[in-house]
Amino acid sequence: MPVPSTAGRLLIACPDARGIVAAVAGFISEHGGNLLDAEQHTDHEHGEFVMRVVFDPSGCDPDDRMFEGAWARLVQRHRMRWRIRWSHVRKRMAILVGRQPHCLQELLWRVGTGELGAEIVFVASNHPDLRETVEHAGIPFHHHPIEDGPGAQARQEADLVARVDAADVDLVVLARYMRVLGPAMLDGRAERIINIHHSFLPAFAGGDPYRQAYDRGVKLIGATSHYVTEVLDDGPIIAQDVTTVDHHDSVADLRRRGRDLERLVLARAVAAHCEDRILVTGGKTVVFR
Amino acid sequence: MPVPSTAGRLLIACPDARGIVAAVAGFISEHGGNLLDAEQHTDHEHGEFVMRVVFDPSGCDPDDRMFEGAWARLVQRHRMRWRIRWSHVRKRMAILVGRQPHCLQELLWRVGTGELGAEIVFVASNHPDLRETVEHAGIPFHHHPIEDGPGAQARQEADLVARVDAADVDLVVLARYMRVLGPAMLDGRAERIINIHHSFLPAFAGGDPYRQAYDRGVKLIGATSHYVTEVLDDGPIIAQDVTTVDHHDSVADLRRRGRDLERLVLARAVAAHCEDRILVTGGKTVVFR
Amino acid sequence: MPVPSTAGRLLIACPDARGIVAAVAGFISEHGGNLLDAEQHTDHEHGEFVMRVVFDPSGCDPDDRMFEGAWARLVQRHRMRWRIRWSHVRKRMAILVGRQPHCLQELLWRVGTGELGAEIVFVASNHPDLRETVEHAGIPFHHHPIEDGPGAQARQEADLVARVDAADVDLVVLARYMRVLGPAMLDGRAERIINIHHSFLPAFAGGDPYRQAYDRGVKLIGATSHYVTEVLDDGPIIAQDVTTVDHHDSVADLRRRGRDLERLVLARAVAAHCEDRILVTGGKTVVFR
Amino acid sequence: MPVPSTAGRLLIACPDARGIVAAVAGFISEHGGNLLDAEQHTDHEHGEFVMRVVFDPSGCDPDDRMFEGAWARLVQRHRMRWRIRWSHVRKRMAILVGRQPHCLQELLWRVGTGELGAEIVFVASNHPDLRETVEHAGIPFHHHPIEDGPGAQARQEADLVARVDAADVDLVVLARYMRVLGPAMLDGRAERIINIHHSFLPAFAGGDPYRQAYDRGVKLIGATSHYVTEVLDDGPIIAQDVTTVDHHDSVADLRRRGRDLERLVLARAVAAHCEDRILVTGGKTVVFR
Repeated sequence: MPVPSTAGRLLIACPDARGIVAAVAGFISEHGGNLLDAEQHTDHEHGEFVMRVVFDPSGCDPDDRMFEGAWARLVQRHRMRWRIRWSHVRKRMAILVGRQPHCLQELLWRVGTGELGAEIVFVASNHPDLRETVEHAGIPFHHHPIEDGPGAQARQEADLVARVDAADVDLVVLARYMRVLGPAMLDGRAERIINIHHSFLPAFAGGDPYRQAYDRGVKLIGATSHYVTEVLDDGPIIAQDVTTVDHHDSVADLRRRGRDLERLVLARAVAAHCEDRILVTGGKTVVFR
Repeated sequence: MPVPSTAGRLLIACPDARGIVAAVAGFISEHGGNLLDAEQHTDHEHGEFVMRVVFDPSGCDPDDRMFEGAWARLVQRHRMRWRIRWSHVRKRMAILVGRQPHCLQELLWRVGTGELGAEIVFVASNHPDLRETVEHAGIPFHHHPIEDGPGAQARQEADLVARVDAADVDLVVLARYMRVLGPAMLDGRAERIINIHHSFLPAFAGGDPYRQAYDRGVKLIGATSHYVTEVLDDGPIIAQDVTTVDHHDSVADLRRRGRDLERLVLARAVAAHCEDRILVTGGKTVVFR
Repeated sequence: MPVPSTAGRLLIACPDARGIVAAVAGFISEHGGNLLDAEQHTDHEHGEFVMRVVFDPSGCDPDDRMFEGAWARLVQRHRMRWRIRWSHVRKRMAILVGRQPHCLQELLWRVGTGELGAEIVFVASNHPDLRETVEHAGIPFHHHPIEDGPGAQARQEADLVARVDAADVDLVVLARYMRVLGPAMLDGRAERIINIHHSFLPAFAGGDPYRQAYDRGVKLIGATSHYVTEVLDDGPIIAQDVTTVDHHDSVADLRRRGRDLERLVLARAVAAHCEDRILVTGGKTVVFR
Repeated sequence: MPVPSTAGRLLIACPDARGIVAAVAGFISEHGGNLLDAEQHTDHEHGEFVMRVVFDPSGCDPDDRMFEGAWARLVQRHRMRWRIRWSHVRKRMAILVGRQPHCLQELLWRVGTGELGAEIVFVASNHPDLRETVEHAGIPFHHHPIEDGPGAQARQEADLVARVDAADVDLVVLARYMRVLGPAMLDGRAERIINIHHSFLPAFAGGDPYRQAYDRGVKLIGATSHYVTEVLDDGPIIAQDVTTVDHHDSVADLRRRGRDLERLVLARAVAAHCEDRILVTGGKTVVFR
């Protein structure tokens, strides 16, 4: 039995009520689609229902127009927030980096092997250091330095925003970009910008978390990937992981060991986004399997 | 929104086909039930569909008769293997032990706190050592020693089987029982006997796995909980976990450290069974979340 | 080659300098002792040297008087902080509990099997709930309720302190005691009181950390065992661990799953203390293997 | 206090006896060296003592001649196996690959960042696929195809052996080479060839371990890095790790997820070798911290 070459991914959130699964599964079935995977969950504390349905549209058009008419009435009745995405449409990703290559390289690899189901439209940085790495992979690199003088950072960010807008980007990944983004970039891009923070948030938010972790003497260090919001290091968490450390580890050791965490946690978060497995509700993510 | 006090747990396996989710969800919805959680999966390699549905039966009778009539036709059409269980019906568990208390104690605790949703009907052993531990918890303890002489072991097992039969037991847990069971106990009890093996199966099947692990110099030791079949240590695996070890660890250290693994892995497997989250297909388990 | 039945455990911290290991190993060797295990480490950032030596004293007296004379001169020359403990002297532990049994039971169990090398002198609580559990294990239980009215809590703590003093206790373990200790208990007991906090500190210090973790939407929850200081949840961390959670987990689920973490992390910290594997330096622990 | 720019790494194994640590530490101290880190361990089962000492040779010559004279007498008295390595001498590594790039890329990267303290002298393969990847990193790539006809494989291996010999290589890494090596390569290279096997050995030795793991229905998959011996997948294990899998994972998923394990486990093993932290005794490794 072959794996279908395209699949619809339908994400739904609405107040909990009877019959939603039956209604959604029935709708897809009636339109000739075949459910491949469905995961739903009810948050009893908030009375909210969330669902992700993956279906083979072979009997119907892989077309957003399927979700008009009868679907619109279902949406209205259940007051659904929803979106449909098709697996054959690859996400368009821009990556912002600083000087450190490891997170960038991890994404270049995974896009290169095809496992991410995404394409990197461009990489931009306020430093020129990683140009060669990026261009060798056949991807455009744009250097957006931050000049001296008043307003320089705002101008640089405005240029970056223009570039992101022009490129019709689905996702901006901050792969150790090391700059705080302003409203010009954030506005209208909720749940479209993913950052990797090099600590187990909410512990050690802000600058130099490995130094903070060292000084506190923790026995595990972590990395956290999250959507960016206007509050620093406070957006919805997508993925986290930790690794054990001990008194042998200097701050430099924590940085070195943390790099392995950062790249894997960021890659996991980007994969979840690209596979349409994330739903944000109440400031938190539901990450479907 | 309150968590309902009872829930139906419906488990289904059948050849993959269109519309099964819609049909099942529709069936429950039409009978006044409300889906609380559903997880389904298609194994493309074998073309098999598996599903677990948890539903609030408040609008209908929490009664197996619901699954007659229309349901029977659905079963026939899709050639389903299926079962329904109700969460308010606590599993009746018998535990067989040897001399080591740790796995037994873990189960006593978790049953005691109510988190397992099961009751321990009795504990039996070929040794008297753990009588006091068991009886202090208010649970009957039966000593079934293995006498000397030909046929003694078969007689002991026949007595045990009679006891299990008389007690109307849903589940037999071998909590470090250290005896190989014969066909008298195994027959008719497929997927009803859970064992804990103190290695990461299939590595180190058979006797004294910690010694085997020590001699091989592995860097992780494991524990495996599985349903018992007639082939030693070969039944469907339910849960596994590992912990790191190194050259500091003697065989005695491995045994001591392994105990923590064994009790947690066994507890996890027993919980999955008691919550009706396991489906066996193709000699392997699907363990729903 | 037999494992010796007693061993000296020598812990040393001093400014880094040449020849310390040779001097210490030579001292033990000259007194007829035999090194079984030695671990030393230099913290280059602070120029501090720490060392733990385990030795078989069979050729000498397992006696603190060995550490006079020549040893005192070594101590003075290297400005050492040091202590010697003998493995056959079991630590005397008092446990303070609230209403939750899981951490207490874990310690009762591990002391019972002998693996902790400690004895529980008494258990005290501001609630009577766990009396039966404790007394069944043959250990005295003291109920120190907190009466109403001004000064009641201070009086209760004074009573507790008197009891701890009278019992000649090496270690006080707060096994989910749920009260903040005042200076009467803390003074003179630095590195002698171990607490278990049910989060990955420094994240979620203070009250109800599982609720905090739930609201923040973290993907891992943790537990932290630490020495108690006058600043809440801020003392030197001894052990930490985490487990993965996701959107399926309610606050109640986090509490239930956290219990397994808490008891293992606390047990690990208490074991490290009882085996004299902890040295505090610069507000952080060195936990030797 | 600066970290010294070179360090001696002394590895010792001998029958357990009194005074070895004192003798070794004294020797180094008397020659003007300063111990930075020492780890020793006694295996009571076999009566064997192992030790690794790292020392700053600043007061003496970083020179192997230091280990003559008095040292030779110490070696003889204690029947030591030993070796000395200097941290400023970078290991010369050859890498053999097949078609899969992930393990190779991980090593290229870690060598590139300097964290491995090694240099890659060349990469060779029986396939041409990875030439571009290797040459882009500025490293020679040699294609050694296996021709048709009798004796072809032996001739290819003889060529490879000649190349390894000519390049004065300290370490051969099989980064998913997918060929069984013959005696021409193995002879005289004990503990100098590291392989990555894509399972948790000893489970699933031999071909296609992910398929084996899938068919057995394990709940964790693993990777194992080990020194190569003449028995397939049986050499001393250096590093192992696992990751959880479940019924959602197809064989292709296991392969994809296993890649992350393989590259990290191999990198960890190669780092341990390059930092002279491995001692083989009794067919097992001691991996010092």
